[in-house]
Amino acid sequence: MGTALAMTAACHSDNTTYLVGSPLDDDFIHSINSNRWHPTLSVNVPENITALREKDAGAEVIQEADVLVIGVSSPGVAWAVGLIQSSKADPECIALVTKGLVAADKENSAPSTYATALDTQLDCNKLLGIGGPCIARELALQIPTAVSFAATRTDLAYKVREHFQTDFYRVAVHPDFIALEACAALKNFFCIGVAAMLGIWEIDGVTAKNPVAALFNQAVLEMETLSQWIRQPQVVKSRNDSKSAAFDLPGMGDLHVTVGGGRNSKLGTLLGKGQRLSEIIDGPMRGVTVEGLDTGKQLLSGFNHAIDHGILSKSKLPLTACILDCIENDHYFNFDFSCIPTE
Amino acid sequence: MGTALAMTAACHSDNTTYLVGSPLDDDFIHSINSNRWHPTLSVNVPENITALREKDAGAEVIQEADVLVIGVSSPGVAWAVGLIQSSKADPECIALVTKGLVAADKENSAPSTYATALDTQLDCNKLLGIGGPCIARELALQIPTAVSFAATRTDLAYKVREHFQTDFYRVAVHPDFIALEACAALKNFFCIGVAAMLGIWEIDGVTAKNPVAALFNQAVLEMETLSQWIRQPQVVKSRNDSKSAAFDLPGMGDLHVTVGGGRNSKLGTLLGKGQRLSEIIDGPMRGVTVEGLDTGKQLLSGFNHAIDHGILSKSKLPLTACILDCIENDHYFNFDFSCIPTE
Repeated sequence: MGTALAMTAACHSDNTTYLVGSPLDDDFIHSINSNRWHPTLSVNVPENITALREKDAGAEVIQEADVLVIGVSSPGVAWAVGLIQSSKADPECIALVTKGLVAADKENSAPSTYATALDTQLDCNKLLGIGGPCIARELALQIPTAVSFAATRTDLAYKVREHFQTDFYRVAVHPDFIALEACAALKNFFCIGVAAMLGIWEIDGVTAKNPVAALFNQAVLEMETLSQWIRQPQVVKSRNDSKSAAFDLPGMGDLHVTVGGGRNSKLGTLLGKGQRLSEIIDGPMRGVTVEGLDTGKQLLSGFNHAIDHGILSKSKLPLTACILDCIENDHYFNFDFSCIPTE
Repeated sequence: MGTALAMTAACHSDNTTYLVGSPLDDDFIHSINSNRWHPTLSVNVPENITALREKDAGAEVIQEADVLVIGVSSPGVAWAVGLIQSSKADPECIALVTKGLVAADKENSAPSTYATALDTQLDCNKLLGIGGPCIARELALQIPTAVSFAATRTDLAYKVREHFQTDFYRVAVHPDFIALEACAALKNFFCIGVAAMLGIWEIDGVTAKNPVAALFNQAVLEMETLSQWIRQPQVVKSRNDSKSAAFDLPGMGDLHVTVGGGRNSKLGTLLGKGQRLSEIIDGPMRGVTVEGLDTGKQLLSGFNHAIDHGILSKSKLPLTACILDCIENDHYFNFDFSCIPTE
């Protein structure tokens, strides 16, 4: 995703775009420099992107950047933050592609978003969140999509999107930074439950469509409630008066694309076929990072506490409870449609 | 859908269920009576459903019904209404499966839902609307789904669902009858635009996922605005404070399943592949009823008027405008992603 965003930024002739690999990325940086080929995206990287190994980057590349994009998976964030700090960079904006939740230290609170958890290390007034349907390879091939940017300072989101928006990468500014970040994490988690429906019901050799659609709908409704809870843990209204991230690109839009493929969807489909989580992560998905699973683990203690104390209602969140039951108790995925709220 | 709902009702042992065919249905009524086989659903119809040709039904079957379900396509509604009137039936509830919009007589107003347009012929206090993801054959096979019932008298919706709800057919009561009916019609219309994305963008021989997800999201947002307009034509707020039908089973849930297959989706896909509407309806879809196309035609004059008078904003409804442009002007489907609202 880092490369795909760099390629989008490089469409603007007034941007100077660098791609700095982590210590694990030497091979692909070498590949780009030798023949402009990105081996995992399977695309050509344009000449106006300068690809550098970390050791060749030099502090000034980081220091002089107006916008830094952290496009690593969560285990790499500490490296990226360290690099920013050690280079004494003071950019206008740090865009965080990495998504997730972080359980509260105390068990009695809601989890934070990854961005909120980082704000002791990075100035939260500089953080930019990106949500919405965006498979990296499709973006790199300039296939159109629409996404949302959000920041605690909304003017920052407006300003930074000028560096990224193109005819094919449409950027709406969303007013609610934390809700966007929460949805961007939660969509991976809920994808597991929706994708389970791809594995259970078959009709004439094809996946049945009603259960997928019904659980897609249920997932978005529950995402709305959980994202409100993460925003404001003590007062959970299931419907927000203002523009809601769950009912927009960061929520239903991104969930749509996430169910369509990828690791979260694969895990869900295997659960739906009747395998337990432990069998899957010791078997067909051994060693694979599944973001929605990590998100679920971070959600667990706060969710259980909120249910026990009447802050959240389990009867309104049957899909959340069902996925967490697979994670916490290694139970078979067994969603009971009669638990869908009908009031 | 009439048969599938009858089969669901027949799961309740205290219901007595009749299936009365229209004059065009003699063959399938005969098939059910000879071997219990429904030739279009390809399912067995249980013995506790009495299937009758219209001429064999007798007025008392209609007269004595507590709940009448009209499960015909729109050209058959006049027949069904005539049958109800001539038999002097006075049921507690008339459930209308048929969905659509009806243009206002005057050009300066929003279209009505099909149900509202019928209320001069049928007592609107008896009408029940059904929305949500529900492919008839899947329902007949008892594959689970969740739907919404709504009525102008909400207590009626609660009462009638007792006759239908099962473990696999979950019924939420929705408070907004007209918004549900509007979404049930509009989802067919918007399906055309979302499905066009299935025909345009291909990557490695597979449909690209970002454009479908982005337009699915845009379709739901526009469905929210249009359903509010149909409810209350003079005051259009794009976000409803109350529970919204567009952001629930009748809207995003049903749109999800509708894009997945069927005639609306096929028409949209062919538009996406670069055929014009006139070429499609004179060619591969000659003689096929496409409900979303009819809905668009009924939407046209009221929409144009509302745009001209500032009641609706075209810049907020680019997908609606794009689909209507294909219908009104036989233009090629040409959705410009840079028209997606980014404010």
